[in-house]
Amino acid sequence: MTNTASIAKGLEGVLFTESKLTFINGTEGILTHLGIPIQEWAENSTFEELSLALLNGQLPTAAELAQFDADLKANRAIPEALTEIIKGMPRGVHPMQALRTAVSYLGLLDPQAEDTSAEARRAIATRMIAQFSTIIAAINRAQEGQDIIAPRMDLTHAGNYLYMLSGKEPTAEQARLFDIALVLHVDHGMNASTFTAIATGSTLSDMYSCITSAIGALKGPLHGGANEAVMDMLDEVGTPDQAEGYITKKLDNKEKIMGVGHRVYKYFDPRSRVLRDYAEVVASKEGKSNYYQILETIEKVVVDRIGSKGIYPNVDFYSGTVYSDLGIKKEYFTPIFALARISGWCASLIEYTGNNRLLRPDAVYTGATDAHYVQLQDRQ
Amino acid sequence: MTNTASIAKGLEGVLFTESKLTFINGTEGILTHLGIPIQEWAENSTFEELSLALLNGQLPTAAELAQFDADLKANRAIPEALTEIIKGMPRGVHPMQALRTAVSYLGLLDPQAEDTSAEARRAIATRMIAQFSTIIAAINRAQEGQDIIAPRMDLTHAGNYLYMLSGKEPTAEQARLFDIALVLHVDHGMNASTFTAIATGSTLSDMYSCITSAIGALKGPLHGGANEAVMDMLDEVGTPDQAEGYITKKLDNKEKIMGVGHRVYKYFDPRSRVLRDYAEVVASKEGKSNYYQILETIEKVVVDRIGSKGIYPNVDFYSGTVYSDLGIKKEYFTPIFALARISGWCASLIEYTGNNRLLRPDAVYTGATDAHYVQLQDRQ
Repeated sequence: MTNTASIAKGLEGVLFTESKLTFINGTEGILTHLGIPIQEWAENSTFEELSLALLNGQLPTAAELAQFDADLKANRAIPEALTEIIKGMPRGVHPMQALRTAVSYLGLLDPQAEDTSAEARRAIATRMIAQFSTIIAAINRAQEGQDIIAPRMDLTHAGNYLYMLSGKEPTAEQARLFDIALVLHVDHGMNASTFTAIATGSTLSDMYSCITSAIGALKGPLHGGANEAVMDMLDEVGTPDQAEGYITKKLDNKEKIMGVGHRVYKYFDPRSRVLRDYAEVVASKEGKSNYYQILETIEKVVVDRIGSKGIYPNVDFYSGTVYSDLGIKKEYFTPIFALARISGWCASLIEYTGNNRLLRPDAVYTGATDAHYVQLQDRQ
Repeated sequence: MTNTASIAKGLEGVLFTESKLTFINGTEGILTHLGIPIQEWAENSTFEELSLALLNGQLPTAAELAQFDADLKANRAIPEALTEIIKGMPRGVHPMQALRTAVSYLGLLDPQAEDTSAEARRAIATRMIAQFSTIIAAINRAQEGQDIIAPRMDLTHAGNYLYMLSGKEPTAEQARLFDIALVLHVDHGMNASTFTAIATGSTLSDMYSCITSAIGALKGPLHGGANEAVMDMLDEVGTPDQAEGYITKKLDNKEKIMGVGHRVYKYFDPRSRVLRDYAEVVASKEGKSNYYQILETIEKVVVDRIGSKGIYPNVDFYSGTVYSDLGIKKEYFTPIFALARISGWCASLIEYTGNNRLLRPDAVYTGATDAHYVQLQDRQ
């Protein structure tokens, strides 16, 4: 029998593949895609460009980006059969259950679904990236009993999502802020949903199976649900003047505080810095919202008291208020995470299956040995 | 930068948890559930009993088994809304895409879906085990343009499946043979689909997300598709007199032979022995079928020539002919695998999430460092 001391719980620290996409240094709070710091992507790039860069493994040329942008736009519409499925779903379901089901159904409608060549995976990825936006907006509206709004082809990926959600064209500033939030969430190394997509893909299963798996993993409260929990916390705090007392009491009682601390980052999550900077810009123009003031206070108290233990605000700490300001309800924060992460999932899958190996770790058996079947009448 | 030599490719040999369910000794060809050899389960037990034993972690009492059997029967029917979804699926889709989608949709219809307590997981598992059978039979019939047949409550789980597939009550012998085939496939340690279910579950996601992920992983040709490939091989061989020449040529050319060799077993897969014994019984009564004679010849040549290298027939080698004899088409071999493995998936999930830890391994970063964003007009 193997010694249980040799177990790598949660596979923490276990290296199982190589990747050229994303680098994270949690101690120093560094996140890069293709070696380029996330701050530079957020400042200069777009969701479309970062998606293509990860799929290609390099910054695209202007012509490549224009083609990809045209491909995304050409694929924004979803099949009528899928719209009907989304409309027919019972009301009040978990939006991620709905997304998982819709994407699984989309696979039934794609004649290329069973093609697992790198070329086909790439083509399917492009369509999925485009269609995720339409699917999520359609689910949101259908679940609220509203008509589904067809995509517009003259808006950016981010701007079109906000348009499909509300029926109103967002301001350039809103579209750009949402674009930045998407950029910040596109990829994050071997997080649980990307890893699950790879686990499924390692059997050489199709893209729809892999992405359906990833959605299921992202749905879990230990993964995608954290920014929703932050909003719950902010609502619980109520008003800015109660923030310090609330958080001090939580820390005194050693309770978990949502949106702070991260398995990887032991310093500021660089994505939280970008979001905070934008939140500050908004605050300086429009005045500090209640949410913003509460977050500011919580961050200050947390960093002062437990920052030295490596516990700092993470990306979820600020993203919820940004989404909320953009008119996105908190039940849709995790689908919005998927809206961005779809690109990282696809790029990681294409990279991994290009040099594939079936994932088959093992468990230490700690059960009975040398047992025998006992006939039913002879059991105690 | 981490040294790439430290990569555990495919996570092979990596131990990530404890389990009391299944033990495999590949070198000696041993497989046990709860310490009891698979041969004893196959000989004495049923799909229903092994499923319950794994969910409970012990052999059930007669009363417990009767209750579980009653629960399964009470849950055989699927919601009318799901039947409509299955009927509405396009024809010619991959049956595993259809199964994945149907199970995902089932989650939308289950008011308990979001409950991830151990008790709820257990209740959902019982329903899923019952309903998988009805869903798979319904998909099979709908895809062939046939009416869907409602389950019968007076048949065993295995017998009812064969009934729903054909509309004819199977003989006791057929029902029992299928039951044994199911028993042999219920669980197999940390195979790729069980591992994927656990990866999803490790985020504390719901059962439907976990099982949808597992279906997607099982679908991959490196996992669930092997017995279908064996049947393709048998059809390619054609007649028994051509078997020796066919296989000798393959071995001479060092080509892969379907249904032989296994990542874990370096000796006879004990499940293949059980299936061969039953195939022999059938052959002695009804004469040797062409398929059986071809398999017999291939096995003999393979064991003689490469058995010493640890390459022996695995479970997929004989299961295809058994299913084929029972009237199951080869496109449905992988769904049949899922029909059995659903119990292992659920039991493993309940065990893992009872002592959960988020799975988050890592990749070695081998990409660019210290790169910077280049404005579009400045790129080459």
